[in-house]
Amino acid sequence: MDYQHIKAAAQRLAGHARRTPLLSSPFLDEVAGRPVFVKAECLQHTGSFKYRGAKSALTAPHAQAARQNVLAFSSGNHAQGVALAAAQSGVTATILMPKDAPAIKIACTKALGAEVVLFDRYTDDRDALGAELAQAGNLRLIKPFDDPDVIAGQGSTGLEIADQAKQLGVQDAQVLVCCGGGGLTSGIALALAEDAPGMTVHTVEPNGFDDAARSLAAGKIVSNPAGGRSLCDAIVTPQPGNLTFPILSKLCGPGLAVSDEMCLRAMALAYQHLKIVIEPGGAVALAAALFLDAPEAALPAIAVATGGNVDPDVFARALKTL
Amino acid sequence: MDYQHIKAAAQRLAGHARRTPLLSSPFLDEVAGRPVFVKAECLQHTGSFKYRGAKSALTAPHAQAARQNVLAFSSGNHAQGVALAAAQSGVTATILMPKDAPAIKIACTKALGAEVVLFDRYTDDRDALGAELAQAGNLRLIKPFDDPDVIAGQGSTGLEIADQAKQLGVQDAQVLVCCGGGGLTSGIALALAEDAPGMTVHTVEPNGFDDAARSLAAGKIVSNPAGGRSLCDAIVTPQPGNLTFPILSKLCGPGLAVSDEMCLRAMALAYQHLKIVIEPGGAVALAAALFLDAPEAALPAIAVATGGNVDPDVFARALKTL
Repeated sequence: MDYQHIKAAAQRLAGHARRTPLLSSPFLDEVAGRPVFVKAECLQHTGSFKYRGAKSALTAPHAQAARQNVLAFSSGNHAQGVALAAAQSGVTATILMPKDAPAIKIACTKALGAEVVLFDRYTDDRDALGAELAQAGNLRLIKPFDDPDVIAGQGSTGLEIADQAKQLGVQDAQVLVCCGGGGLTSGIALALAEDAPGMTVHTVEPNGFDDAARSLAAGKIVSNPAGGRSLCDAIVTPQPGNLTFPILSKLCGPGLAVSDEMCLRAMALAYQHLKIVIEPGGAVALAAALFLDAPEAALPAIAVATGGNVDPDVFARALKTL
Repeated sequence: MDYQHIKAAAQRLAGHARRTPLLSSPFLDEVAGRPVFVKAECLQHTGSFKYRGAKSALTAPHAQAARQNVLAFSSGNHAQGVALAAAQSGVTATILMPKDAPAIKIACTKALGAEVVLFDRYTDDRDALGAELAQAGNLRLIKPFDDPDVIAGQGSTGLEIADQAKQLGVQDAQVLVCCGGGGLTSGIALALAEDAPGMTVHTVEPNGFDDAARSLAAGKIVSNPAGGRSLCDAIVTPQPGNLTFPILSKLCGPGLAVSDEMCLRAMALAYQHLKIVIEPGGAVALAAALFLDAPEAALPAIAVATGGNVDPDVFARALKTL
């Protein structure tokens, strides 16, 4: 899992994944007290960066050769990415989704042609259900983050950040990435270590789900306590991945965490000044850029807005903070 | 006023105006019954395409030589475009805005450094007020559409549409443009006549403010009846311009018009499937693409989403249509 892996994935994604814009507004700079740039991955196909990893996994040479139907577990963004990439590859996608995933995510996953199997995240054994389906249908599991092809696909975001920031004259920056299992963060960190060595990558998580931050501090993988609640459905993973954590540990600075209220306010400011729609879990990085004291105060912040699949009632709640 | 004028403006805008993405979603294609592409000018600096025309006018060779402070009339999008372009050129901007313009537009225009003078659009004589201010301060008036440099700047949007559509393999299309005074539509029509002759441009307006459509049908400039109401504050101009109408008349197909309800629904679908924020006046073109019978049914539609400066209560109203 290295830089060349990411370059190869980026070549496979060319002409498929969107090169999303790096946006900014003087109004956000003023709130943050420093320049803020937003990599708008909510504008990616299926409304999140997850399409990159899914497309990379489905177009990897070994996948092309096998042409196996696929299976994924996801609360919704990975689900849609896999559904679209599978449809483009002419294979079927079966997606296990929790019953209480946002309605928009379930509806869009189905509409993209996937077979959605709902489970109860409190009572059902998701892994057993998945294993059964995989065996019955001879399905290939596309993991959401602990897969080298997936990490490589997400890392293509980092290649674009380096190039776009350079065009704006930005070489040194604090890069803030919304972090669930760490696939996107580790991919971006690998890309930037090569293409923009003046940038430092930090994970950003919701309060109560800061397993990456605590794992980085502890120097080993630690989990979140059970029973936490967060608006950030996309990134409430229990712990960093076995593949992603060593990369995060080697390349990233300390992890950050923000409150749901900060996310709602960041969503509202992105609405007002960037004209983009971000979901709560996609807004933690921007929230950190805007509302946390900057550990490297003089540096511009580059926040990745990872997704925009948010139900209207939650978005309306964010607008009320204006 | 020709294609070369637009190419020259595009060169002056390079590195300043954003090359906004051309977005799409299979869900919108399904609603429309044909491929739909959205040129997301709401992601332009200041939240609308108006920055292009303002920047073009302020960087034109004669403007550079004069370095005169500027004046503009605007309900808000032209205001912000002029305010930012003036600040970048080191001249002051005085903007006459109606008292009942959206709060977000007034606040952002002021925050961009302009001096805002509010007037009552029902009782004050805007033109007399403007003439007085212009004379007292030796200000150059930047008209919102009837100015060759402004039309040329807006036309740079058309150069990008031609290039981006070509990259997607789209050569023949119906191009739908939100139309107030016709500056953007005429600029795009001039650009596409050269760069994408398979595309036909149509104005789209709110019902009751379809002066361009009726002028095109009549073969002469006609005005809207007084007293109409529309949510589309950005494009409720009384009639097409003296410079823009001959271009529209020569190059465009018949004009279209849509209801406020269609705009709200288009805003909601753009929120849901493209993750962009569009204001009512910026949504008329997408509304036409989605909800009107296509005069050229088999062709893809390219709709320009012209702006995203919308107060949260109106946006929340749009979300309720989902």
